[in-house]
Amino acid sequence: MEIGIIGSGSLGLLYSFYLSENNKVTLYTRREEQASKINKHGITLVQGNSEMKKNVEATFEKNYKEPVLIITVKQYSLKPIIDTLTRLSPRTIIFLQNGMGHLRFLKHLSHHNLILGISEHGALKVSDSVVQHTGNGITKISSYKDCEMDVMNQIIRNHSEVFPFIRKSDWERMLKEKLIVNATINPLTALFRVKNGELITNPYFHKLFYELFEEVADLLKIENKELSWKQVKTICENTSENKSSMYKDIYNGRQTEIDSILGYMIDLSNGKSCPRISFLYQAIKGIEIGKEGV
Amino acid sequence: MEIGIIGSGSLGLLYSFYLSENNKVTLYTRREEQASKINKHGITLVQGNSEMKKNVEATFEKNYKEPVLIITVKQYSLKPIIDTLTRLSPRTIIFLQNGMGHLRFLKHLSHHNLILGISEHGALKVSDSVVQHTGNGITKISSYKDCEMDVMNQIIRNHSEVFPFIRKSDWERMLKEKLIVNATINPLTALFRVKNGELITNPYFHKLFYELFEEVADLLKIENKELSWKQVKTICENTSENKSSMYKDIYNGRQTEIDSILGYMIDLSNGKSCPRISFLYQAIKGIEIGKEGV
Repeated sequence: MEIGIIGSGSLGLLYSFYLSENNKVTLYTRREEQASKINKHGITLVQGNSEMKKNVEATFEKNYKEPVLIITVKQYSLKPIIDTLTRLSPRTIIFLQNGMGHLRFLKHLSHHNLILGISEHGALKVSDSVVQHTGNGITKISSYKDCEMDVMNQIIRNHSEVFPFIRKSDWERMLKEKLIVNATINPLTALFRVKNGELITNPYFHKLFYELFEEVADLLKIENKELSWKQVKTICENTSENKSSMYKDIYNGRQTEIDSILGYMIDLSNGKSCPRISFLYQAIKGIEIGKEGV
Repeated sequence: MEIGIIGSGSLGLLYSFYLSENNKVTLYTRREEQASKINKHGITLVQGNSEMKKNVEATFEKNYKEPVLIITVKQYSLKPIIDTLTRLSPRTIIFLQNGMGHLRFLKHLSHHNLILGISEHGALKVSDSVVQHTGNGITKISSYKDCEMDVMNQIIRNHSEVFPFIRKSDWERMLKEKLIVNATINPLTALFRVKNGELITNPYFHKLFYELFEEVADLLKIENKELSWKQVKTICENTSENKSSMYKDIYNGRQTEIDSILGYMIDLSNGKSCPRISFLYQAIKGIEIGKEGV
């Protein structure tokens, strides 16, 4: 299959590396410099003590010619790409964003075959052409509305064992399950600058964690709240030694995904009171722009 | 006048130094070591580049024999002192605690002449016998219920120009004005680890500051909220380069006064919803016990 991967951050590099095993991949970068580095050196994947290299074609031109496109940029960088996608002839587009903020763009793309995805891999961009695979995960994909299933089936069949794709039947549920994790663990750990596990072991943080979960679950109209809380807690326990992506973003002075996560929740609230979500949203936004933040 | 000063932290040392000018002061310390150091070396006051020394009698015995006692310990250290005071013969006792959490003890002390006070001095304990006067302020004092006014008048008359005491007619209003500052500026600056001024200049923090103020003002039943907000904001602007005491406590891994400030507010809420106060209370308590706090 010919696949175009748009966005060359950690996820873009990771997916380009693994998918080029069985497909002809083109990686679309924002900067010319990065494209030429990748064309020259390939993409290097670091995992533990081992290093592997693959040749991948990269370009900074935005012609997006492949019949399958995977969008790996953060939600806050999506807007100009959407503008280009609206003008493209019909094809299959897979979105791998956190949160649900990107759903509002999909109405402009109804002539395409749309797939929503969730990446559960841990990845760290080491340099323009080197990515570290810090945690093996899976990629969940789900058809948005009545999408044509051929490409999805092909992707799932094509997966390697170390980089599996699985199909979920309910995209909304899939995205909500991820969102509920991102909306609770991420902002709290970023605010307190603690590893995920502290939300379990510190009784005060744990109380805040639960109260925030309740607000989020109510807004998302989660039906089985008890089960959902169990799942979120289990993920937090299983990743107790990890720093959340938002914590790392704050720590490194980068823009966070707060808008597509808690910003989306506030839009969803439609004026309904959600004081904890609103407090955390303001707090993270304030830390982002703060001079004395870290 | 013979004055006993109970508690030998920064405020205890500061008041002992200044009041010993016109009074016979005994400073009550918790540790024998500190008392003997002060008896040997006196108390040194540092201000800017100048240093002054005064001889002050100190003791770690809890006989509290003076007719006037000034209590300078933090609210969370008050309990054992109250137990001793209940057994003392009638005298004048001046309380200089933050918050209003100490009011609940006063019913056990009704045989005494009770005065409530607010210290607006900035002070930093440098060592057991050295205190730095970091900010000139005033001491406000107010009679609790029908206290006998002689001692209060004498203290106010006795004040030196650099260390003034002024009388306030309404103790409740006096304490609330301080509490509203402590309940808003302190926990927010401690949580974000920013100087007071960031609550004015950072638009996201400013919004949180105002929303928190509203919750606090409602619980305290502040009548003229607009005026009160103006006052709090002015204090924040005037101290923009300062780190709040709670920020410093968090930064130095010390216990904060969160219980006597927001803990008191939560008691006051009597179950009424105060999500921002409650969030901040849990947050500061969590940071206090957290391993990764700072």
